[in-house]
Amino acid sequence: MKYLAEINIMPLKALLDPQGKAVKSSMHNIGYKTVTDVRIGKHITLDIEADDEAHAKQKVNEACEKILSNPIMESFEFTLKLV
Amino acid sequence: MKYLAEINIMPLKALLDPQGKAVKSSMHNIGYKTVTDVRIGKHITLDIEADDEAHAKQKVNEACEKILSNPIMESFEFTLKLV
Repeated sequence: MKYLAEINIMPLKALLDPQGKAVKSSMHNIGYKTVTDVRIGKHITLDIEADDEAHAKQKVNEACEKILSNPIMESFEFTLKLV
Repeated sequence: MKYLAEINIMPLKALLDPQGKAVKSSMHNIGYKTVTDVRIGKHITLDIEADDEAHAKQKVNEACEKILSNPIMESFEFTLKLV
């Protein structure tokens, strides 16, 4: 069966996010003064074949931990859905 | 009131996504053969002050269209929640 994983990888809350800070400051400069914080990470969609949802979940989790995210600097979360 | 916008910005379906292609091929090489497609975009969280949800939505939509995404190459979607 085919599953679609929607993964969000974000810089850890405790760390500075220079890209987010830069975008926030640009937004302030061009008039979006009501924006109080911006954080920028990655959104990854992954199509994966698996026998069942538990297997798909395990594979995606492993891939996130080993390859897609850097655990020193980033946290991840994902949702799975059957397609 | 303070709203949290969760924005996903993805390369348009019709376009190649070289970063996604590269990650997919690396994943195949290291054994994740069941992954059939990978697309990589941005995930942005935005804290915004607004009088009500309609105003917040309008501001976020405008910011996505004008600054955060490139409409030639990317599509965006977002959810808003009161924090």
